[in-house]
Amino acid sequence: MLQISQRGQQMPPSPIRKLVPYAEAAKKKGMHVYHLNIGQPDIETPAPILDAVRHFNFTVLEYSHSAGNESYRKKLVKYYQRVGIDVDYTQILVTTGGSEAILFGLMSCLDAGDEVIIPEPYYANYNGFAVAAGIFVKPITSYIESGFALPSMAAFEKAITPKTKAIMICNPNNPTGYLYSRDEMETLKQICLKNDLFLFADEAYREFCYEGTHTSAMHMSGVEDHVVLVDTISKRYSACGGRIGALVTKNREVLDTVLKFAQARLSPPSFSQILGEAAVDLPSNYFDTTKAEYKKRRDVMVARLNAMDGVFCPKPGGAFYAIARLPIDDADHFCQWLLESFSYQNQTVMLAPASGFYGTEGLGKTQVRLAYVLNTESLNKAMDCLEKALLQYKSAKASPSPLLAIH
Amino acid sequence: MLQISQRGQQMPPSPIRKLVPYAEAAKKKGMHVYHLNIGQPDIETPAPILDAVRHFNFTVLEYSHSAGNESYRKKLVKYYQRVGIDVDYTQILVTTGGSEAILFGLMSCLDAGDEVIIPEPYYANYNGFAVAAGIFVKPITSYIESGFALPSMAAFEKAITPKTKAIMICNPNNPTGYLYSRDEMETLKQICLKNDLFLFADEAYREFCYEGTHTSAMHMSGVEDHVVLVDTISKRYSACGGRIGALVTKNREVLDTVLKFAQARLSPPSFSQILGEAAVDLPSNYFDTTKAEYKKRRDVMVARLNAMDGVFCPKPGGAFYAIARLPIDDADHFCQWLLESFSYQNQTVMLAPASGFYGTEGLGKTQVRLAYVLNTESLNKAMDCLEKALLQYKSAKASPSPLLAIH
Repeated sequence: MLQISQRGQQMPPSPIRKLVPYAEAAKKKGMHVYHLNIGQPDIETPAPILDAVRHFNFTVLEYSHSAGNESYRKKLVKYYQRVGIDVDYTQILVTTGGSEAILFGLMSCLDAGDEVIIPEPYYANYNGFAVAAGIFVKPITSYIESGFALPSMAAFEKAITPKTKAIMICNPNNPTGYLYSRDEMETLKQICLKNDLFLFADEAYREFCYEGTHTSAMHMSGVEDHVVLVDTISKRYSACGGRIGALVTKNREVLDTVLKFAQARLSPPSFSQILGEAAVDLPSNYFDTTKAEYKKRRDVMVARLNAMDGVFCPKPGGAFYAIARLPIDDADHFCQWLLESFSYQNQTVMLAPASGFYGTEGLGKTQVRLAYVLNTESLNKAMDCLEKALLQYKSAKASPSPLLAIH
Repeated sequence: MLQISQRGQQMPPSPIRKLVPYAEAAKKKGMHVYHLNIGQPDIETPAPILDAVRHFNFTVLEYSHSAGNESYRKKLVKYYQRVGIDVDYTQILVTTGGSEAILFGLMSCLDAGDEVIIPEPYYANYNGFAVAAGIFVKPITSYIESGFALPSMAAFEKAITPKTKAIMICNPNNPTGYLYSRDEMETLKQICLKNDLFLFADEAYREFCYEGTHTSAMHMSGVEDHVVLVDTISKRYSACGGRIGALVTKNREVLDTVLKFAQARLSPPSFSQILGEAAVDLPSNYFDTTKAEYKKRRDVMVARLNAMDGVFCPKPGGAFYAIARLPIDDADHFCQWLLESFSYQNQTVMLAPASGFYGTEGLGKTQVRLAYVLNTESLNKAMDCLEKALLQYKSAKASPSPLLAIH
């Protein structure tokens, strides 16, 4: 019998998108849904970089170099210089989104059956890339009580086996918003050096740090051969649909290997490379404005959350996500209920249940991820909804026939 | 010790691009190099579809749907209707180039260790996708003497093992230009039905058929669940840099699985989806002009080749490639020599050695692939070069110190 592959069956559906049908049904009923479930910023893509695409001047839309246009890679060198990362353009390979950088990096450094250690909760699509690459994610838990700080060195060392080839972090973190300190980065460096591990650093949210400064994996010396930086312009310039990322490493063997994967897929998209190149020329205060906006949103949202009865949300140091613990038993159920059975002034809010971001079964069941990608007015309304919803959900749960009351 | 993966080591470098450094060196010496080595058409991308991109009207470059914009998929339904393929938009998933369609299709239908049968010579990047997916390509040989017709049913059945999950064809074929007949497609259908195999049909060159008509794998009835069509706009509209392809199948389970891989990488590039959507509205005679141009080039090139002493080139029925047998021992050496040591009127020609397109070691050593992607004037000059080169190479080889004479 014709059958799909085992890996196809193992491939996880997106936990962020699985509630979409319920949201669509709510909208069909005429409800307004505040989308705090997905990291799609509402910030406008800078007009000059959109204009750069409008003004392209070729007549044949040709393949670019498999590693990306040389002119773009040379521009990226300047961008990285500004954030204290010293690389030359031959150490940069332009990818189709950060996603492709992660996949090519994993495939180049790990074989099927190998393991990568990732502090949980982590970006859920790492699971998908792991299945595609035939590797295993070994999660080690970070805890909401400590604001999702890096697990201890002992926790890492306990998780390391002969199959462990890499550690992957996202800094600042999606989904927790945690910003790793210089000391924590040094800890990671020591572990990688001691155990011969690659250090994958997903720095998609580098420009959005609100407390302290960002320590890139490429700011550290003595670990250059271990570091594989994966990057993207998606969040940096609110350019998610461009599908332009980069893999940056000083390990020549890794880069040469990644290039072979890149050659097989020919080239990254041409139009968006123009956009990425123009982005490096944005005024130096571009990030100040965006960052100030996100910081304002964070402060509003986190304050509102912590003011709610039984809710705890550590203040994220970066990115535009927060994880909150709610006074509920099952966030999957609650998030679906918000869309299916709740309404306040004909509005509701869509959240991502945190369970999808944990690798360990059973963790995160009382937690949700919130992306503060809406303006403060909308965020406040979304928080109004959540506040009312929690009260109503509690009493619904407390009622004699909870199932009937909920559905 | 820090090491790259085994699969990274197995990953083949692009055989088309490996001579690039020699071409660059020739150009630095002031030589003109005619590039017949790569399928990058010189045909202009239609102005209206480039204009469609210029006139995009969004302010936030958002993720699109993971399966591609609904509006684009609905337009593609019309395109496929025109070529006699009856699908609805939920059976189409927009991918980042045909490359991604192949990779996602293979990963969804085959597990690591499984086998796919492909008539050789075949598109060299299939090897790269196979390594990425951890699967094995089982080549069965097609022969230049029969113009690279489909191998016999017996040859297929001999190659089938319990690990065989699919057959992949490219029709019309890259690198041979062979156009499979209706009867040959029916043979493939029978083999797939009898042996429960998927039929991957790469139809990137569908619009470029010069003899007879194209039989799509999706023109056949009774085999719908087996067929996975992989497609791209790269060659169709000379839009290689757009990186927009599609995977089309009526097998719902395959499509749902491919969608999970697509969700992990979020979405295909947004700008080029606009271009792809506009392309469906090009005037109905668009392909006539392009096809006439390619046919003229084919006729010129194939006639010139067959007029050369000891050269044999079967007339390709489609695509824009031909494979020629040359009166030489080692095409890899000859192609390098053309760039390094030969010059006619300060010009030379770059060809792709055919060995890289064979899966069986040792085959194709006297063959080269030529892409007729240059205008007839340039093609004629390239053929002048090749004609002179073959004479000179023969006498160089016949001389007492061949190595000295050559290098």
